[in-house]
Amino acid sequence: MTALPEPPPPDRVRIRFDPDGARPREVRVPTGATLFDAASWNGIAVDSTCGGHGTCRKCRMRVVEGDVTVSLLDPRAFGPEELRAGWRLACRARAEQDLRVEVPPLVTRPKAATVGVGRQVILRPAVQKRCLTLPEPTLADQRTDLERLRDALPDLELRVDLPAIRSLARVLRADPTADPTADPTAGPTVTAVVVDDVLVDVEPGDTTGRLFGIAFDLGTTTVVATLLDLATGTPVAVASVLNPQQPHGADVITRISATMTDPTALQRLTALAHQCLDQLAGEVCADGGVDRGEVYEIAVAGNATMTHLALGLDPEPLGVAPFVMASRSFDDLTAADLGVRAHPRARAYVFPALGAYVGGDIVAGALASGMDRDRRVRLFIDIGTNCEILLAAGDRLLATAAPAGPAFEGAAIRCGMRAAPGAVEGVKISDDDVVLQVIGDVEPIGVAGSGLVDAVAAMVAAGLVDGSGRLVAADAPGVPPGLAARLRQVGQERVFVLHFRGHDPDGDPADALYLSQRDIRELQFAKAAISTGWQLLLEEQGLTAADVAQVLLAGSFGSYLGPAAAVRIGLVPEVALLRIVSAGNVAGEGAKMALLSLRERAAAQALLEEVHYVELSDRADFNDRFVERLAFPV
Amino acid sequence: MTALPEPPPPDRVRIRFDPDGARPREVRVPTGATLFDAASWNGIAVDSTCGGHGTCRKCRMRVVEGDVTVSLLDPRAFGPEELRAGWRLACRARAEQDLRVEVPPLVTRPKAATVGVGRQVILRPAVQKRCLTLPEPTLADQRTDLERLRDALPDLELRVDLPAIRSLARVLRADPTADPTADPTAGPTVTAVVVDDVLVDVEPGDTTGRLFGIAFDLGTTTVVATLLDLATGTPVAVASVLNPQQPHGADVITRISATMTDPTALQRLTALAHQCLDQLAGEVCADGGVDRGEVYEIAVAGNATMTHLALGLDPEPLGVAPFVMASRSFDDLTAADLGVRAHPRARAYVFPALGAYVGGDIVAGALASGMDRDRRVRLFIDIGTNCEILLAAGDRLLATAAPAGPAFEGAAIRCGMRAAPGAVEGVKISDDDVVLQVIGDVEPIGVAGSGLVDAVAAMVAAGLVDGSGRLVAADAPGVPPGLAARLRQVGQERVFVLHFRGHDPDGDPADALYLSQRDIRELQFAKAAISTGWQLLLEEQGLTAADVAQVLLAGSFGSYLGPAAAVRIGLVPEVALLRIVSAGNVAGEGAKMALLSLRERAAAQALLEEVHYVELSDRADFNDRFVERLAFPV
Repeated sequence: MTALPEPPPPDRVRIRFDPDGARPREVRVPTGATLFDAASWNGIAVDSTCGGHGTCRKCRMRVVEGDVTVSLLDPRAFGPEELRAGWRLACRARAEQDLRVEVPPLVTRPKAATVGVGRQVILRPAVQKRCLTLPEPTLADQRTDLERLRDALPDLELRVDLPAIRSLARVLRADPTADPTADPTAGPTVTAVVVDDVLVDVEPGDTTGRLFGIAFDLGTTTVVATLLDLATGTPVAVASVLNPQQPHGADVITRISATMTDPTALQRLTALAHQCLDQLAGEVCADGGVDRGEVYEIAVAGNATMTHLALGLDPEPLGVAPFVMASRSFDDLTAADLGVRAHPRARAYVFPALGAYVGGDIVAGALASGMDRDRRVRLFIDIGTNCEILLAAGDRLLATAAPAGPAFEGAAIRCGMRAAPGAVEGVKISDDDVVLQVIGDVEPIGVAGSGLVDAVAAMVAAGLVDGSGRLVAADAPGVPPGLAARLRQVGQERVFVLHFRGHDPDGDPADALYLSQRDIRELQFAKAAISTGWQLLLEEQGLTAADVAQVLLAGSFGSYLGPAAAVRIGLVPEVALLRIVSAGNVAGEGAKMALLSLRERAAAQALLEEVHYVELSDRADFNDRFVERLAFPV
Repeated sequence: MTALPEPPPPDRVRIRFDPDGARPREVRVPTGATLFDAASWNGIAVDSTCGGHGTCRKCRMRVVEGDVTVSLLDPRAFGPEELRAGWRLACRARAEQDLRVEVPPLVTRPKAATVGVGRQVILRPAVQKRCLTLPEPTLADQRTDLERLRDALPDLELRVDLPAIRSLARVLRADPTADPTADPTAGPTVTAVVVDDVLVDVEPGDTTGRLFGIAFDLGTTTVVATLLDLATGTPVAVASVLNPQQPHGADVITRISATMTDPTALQRLTALAHQCLDQLAGEVCADGGVDRGEVYEIAVAGNATMTHLALGLDPEPLGVAPFVMASRSFDDLTAADLGVRAHPRARAYVFPALGAYVGGDIVAGALASGMDRDRRVRLFIDIGTNCEILLAAGDRLLATAAPAGPAFEGAAIRCGMRAAPGAVEGVKISDDDVVLQVIGDVEPIGVAGSGLVDAVAAMVAAGLVDGSGRLVAADAPGVPPGLAARLRQVGQERVFVLHFRGHDPDGDPADALYLSQRDIRELQFAKAAISTGWQLLLEEQGLTAADVAQVLLAGSFGSYLGPAAAVRIGLVPEVALLRIVSAGNVAGEGAKMALLSLRERAAAQALLEEVHYVELSDRADFNDRFVERLAFPV
């Protein structure tokens, strides 16, 4: 194994915030981050109504130690005395050195929630409720019901659904004695429900405390729903289920194929997606004590195929060159379009896709891991049958998809299986023994993707697999005698036995748990495809693996993968192990962020413009690189 | 009868247009009209993309005889030489004298249709179809289906319905051999269907010649549907039916009452409105050889109560003070919201209302009669149980509603009936005889509203009714002997017999066709209410009846009413009879205009801002004026 070059320490500065009335907070942020972002990321509430776009001039802060350049907008917000005293607009103030900053009291106090990879999101959901007491009409004031409501919401330019007008008319004339706490001399108290700029409903009384959304991670294998309280930003309930489309194919390609051979399959797969989402919605609502009618928006993060199937769009063009989507993003969707029973006019936000193989789940993941908010060189790798790779470097974002094949899903591996009880997820090889880490601590019955990577890495380290990926013979020089008995033959093929049934080393190896030469080749192809992907992205930016400051491993497989083994087989760049971070279910986190903040949603949409997609299948140098990357580092 | 003062001749100028390549046209327009409007009203196509708002600078014309002041915008569109040569922007050029104008060739040639009261509408429907040939995707061009379509429509900023994306994906991959005329080497030819800024569908091949809309006049009594070819602006088929809500009440107040006493009535009335509109849609489509799926938009003009009922909105607040509507106008309606089966994403435009008693039908009527396009003093009177009155004077528009009661509908009149076969619609009284004009030339069975007005006018002229509205006694001085036998008593009440059954003057007057003292009082109250309405509007503007240049009588009753009789009883101002114009079904014409032209629709919407609504029930001087106006001019 070669020595790992140590990359230079990330370029960070220290900011001490002194918020009015709260305890000081010291944070570290990338050099050049704005004070607005630095505060937002760290849960320090900043006054703002424009979301950091330089228009509201409310995010005033005073830099009391260190220097921050006066921005173009600052002289419009502050007088010369104030500028000298260190006052700056936080959204325009870049931290280029260590600072101490006073945060004044808030006029409007936004709330924040922590989601994603340590991301702090200022609550500004698309869904808002406004409680209003409307004046009674008179002959001198014949404004219509709707005009009365609009006039009470002068800051909103509403479009209005017909059923909301029906509700408004009904609610304004409901029996006032129904609410004993209401002031009988005032006009009726109502709550307007607004999603984006659409008035979707008007409810009697004050219901501002009850507004919910559901974030869905619509995975090929697993679907997860999180019910969020949009008033507080807190998760209320979570539920998950295996994607019921699985009988139609384990991965996206087989599901696409199913629709190509059977004309009714698309309709069936769409119905299964809808049933699954709706069932989870029912579960989290029941669990959280929330009525479905109190769910006003849902957000869905899924890959392009899952998204197309859920929206009833033919996925066939995704499965054949030139891999074209029907659309990247979708306007004006409703929860009903996705089969989810919620408020009758509940909206749906579906994450847009970068490409047929870098879908909305990856955009959500990039959002949750702040790929667009960090100037360091970072790789985001979501390992699966299709492996999505993002490279962030300064202001540039590159994306690609590598066809890794099914090795990591356990398919195409003789003794492979999903990460489930009985699956080997970790392997340690010493000179005379093999120690397996098995999910559920039971008798091992198969090898999961992470176990496969661990095993092969350990076999390479132990000299059982050479640099070209060939299993050595039992009598080859250097094979520890304690392991020789595990190097066997099944049919014409060399295998390495991980576990003999009944611990009987003389048993038939065909009955044992083993990795075959072909299994190792499958993994070799997969890791070559993936590493060719990030290698080409780095080259595109004139970078090498040594420049990478952080590797984020996304998705459930990424969470199980051992960083050391991933480095050892060359699946990820050779960086210090601490710089390899398991990012968890970032797609689901991204979906939550979209529900909590319009600003984050705009950032996701902006990714479509910012990310440069690199199509590997179109590159003349892909095969050369692929062959170069086949070898295991020894 | 007093002598009619002759108002000054209307202030008009003559314009001779010389359109490029077409024969010259001479038109007369109100002084001060713009050349743009003068041309548009007269079907002379003018180049314009902004609809006459001074922004596109395309409506160039050259004034070759007469002078037109240079507007503020002209120097931005023309050089000094051009201005000297007479070049002007037509939308800013006001005709203050007789002119000769050259109209240059068009860059974009719009089409025009004649609708309304001689109104010429430049075709620019909300519905448009665009035929496109889209390039096939390649690995080097992985744009999504929708991006490919958007890029082919660079002038449109589309919102996109999900089903339209489904259609697009399907149509792009349809079997190309299905269309033998298609060029197999080019990409697929498709037609995008756009309503407003929404892509509602994508159809295979070129379907640009097939786009239709249905204009509905949703009257309290009668509902009329006109199928329009939106590609040419021509009507294809018309159908009408009695409003099936009639069993629930003849007028709006009784229908509102029905919903107040029976909680299920609203739902039933809404269903009846939907069935009626949908049935008419089916009839006009069948008649015109048009598939319902080719109808992409409908427009509906109805009074506020009919509109509320059709949209499922509780009309109760319209029926009780302070007479408040749920909303004046409605966003984003679909044909389905009104129960009309058309294209699945067909939109609906519902005319906005000025007030609870000056509804969308009146806005449509005002549009069709150009109330906002004429600087003369004009009155628009729609006579019915509720009488709507508009006054246009220069740039001012005033509106009010007068509670005329049911006299004109035949209700509350002892021998009253609707205008149907057997109804007396005209009455002439000589010294010794009464001559009746009967619908269908059959034995008279009742008196219609127009017959009532005619009869009372004739009775006043013959001295049978005095100025206070009292029927004179048979033996009163001045009663012609030949008529004395018709002045009889039924019970305690004086009556005037119009027609004895079997022509037997000795028969029981209770069996005869007569007008009673109470009937005359009903008419007297109705005409007093109406004339108080226009009187107060005129006073509000500092005008008198002598200033009125034109009286438009709208609605089906207005079309039957004799102008002479209307003047004689004081129902309309005393103006020369030629200046009293029956405007016909202006609400239906307005609905057609809204389908044909977004510009006209914008004008209708603008009326909401421009019209000043005068609430009569709120006025201290209403009762005084009402009593003043009770007398018949003698």
